[in-house]
Amino acid sequence: MSGVCGEAETRRCLVEERVRAFPDFPVPGVLFRDITPLLKDPIAFGAAIDLLEAHLKTSYPQIDCIAGLDARGFLFGPVLAQRLGIGFVLIRKKGKLPGLTESVSYALEYGQAELEIQSDAVEPGQKVVLLDDLLATGGTMSAACELMKKLKAEVLECLVLIELKSLKGAEKLKPFSIYSLLQYD
Amino acid sequence: MSGVCGEAETRRCLVEERVRAFPDFPVPGVLFRDITPLLKDPIAFGAAIDLLEAHLKTSYPQIDCIAGLDARGFLFGPVLAQRLGIGFVLIRKKGKLPGLTESVSYALEYGQAELEIQSDAVEPGQKVVLLDDLLATGGTMSAACELMKKLKAEVLECLVLIELKSLKGAEKLKPFSIYSLLQYD
Repeated sequence: MSGVCGEAETRRCLVEERVRAFPDFPVPGVLFRDITPLLKDPIAFGAAIDLLEAHLKTSYPQIDCIAGLDARGFLFGPVLAQRLGIGFVLIRKKGKLPGLTESVSYALEYGQAELEIQSDAVEPGQKVVLLDDLLATGGTMSAACELMKKLKAEVLECLVLIELKSLKGAEKLKPFSIYSLLQYD
Repeated sequence: MSGVCGEAETRRCLVEERVRAFPDFPVPGVLFRDITPLLKDPIAFGAAIDLLEAHLKTSYPQIDCIAGLDARGFLFGPVLAQRLGIGFVLIRKKGKLPGLTESVSYALEYGQAELEIQSDAVEPGQKVVLLDDLLATGGTMSAACELMKKLKAEVLECLVLIELKSLKGAEKLKPFSIYSLLQYD
């Protein structure tokens, strides 16, 4: 690939070099993608934000806000929202947000979990990009889309740093579209 | 105070206006300080980051990295670290981080919790600012200080957006110093 790498590809490589893999975490058989080295490296993290910012500015100039998923979506959302000059909205695990809320249950490998958002977090008709660090089976992101539907907001896209292609999260999320910076099997 | 407000005070007011209070959340008798309106307002959130950035640049030019506490410390940490051109390190609830870790238990109102950090998150001797959204009794922040001690890093300061003075967290954290943008009783 040498010689054909543009500026964006150089940035993408910088980001990829700062994601490491841990086998059998959190359970045997799972290869965990660890983004902590990316956060530790201000150049590589800045490159990731540059790429996400460029993507959103090009594809969704009409964006009203970014809604990020608890907890790793919080690492990327506010910095990206600041770059775009828009607000950041929190989607949290059940029981963390005060006031009137909407919630949606979703299936985990074992049992169930619940995502929650404040009822006044977004206005009806607002154009929202959903953000998380990683897309696996798409269960959590799908619940986040449901929350937006409850608040009558429009989901422009589901944005993630990493997509695990073999788990087919993108299929589960249809008709919503996915954009990922890095893809693994 | 009118007429004597400098630029920093104007910014502080902007921030304060975007923190709302919810009585009896998460349990009766607690007045919950909700920062979601701050995150939703890019001007006010930017003002908060401006103030924290200015404070750190003035007080700790030798800072190596910011370590933020799961999950609301993640909202402020990476954007602040990007402003300073330094790395961000994650302190998480037990069981979320892969690889070799150090952990510290601390008391909650009911029962116990555990904070964890990757063993290679910071180098011995690195100068770290610990960051969270809010300081109450100081139990969580105190555990974070312990983690830094285990990794032989130097805690420059415990930085929070909001300090609940009556809960005397600052006393619990001595000899570490606290800096907060907003104070409530």
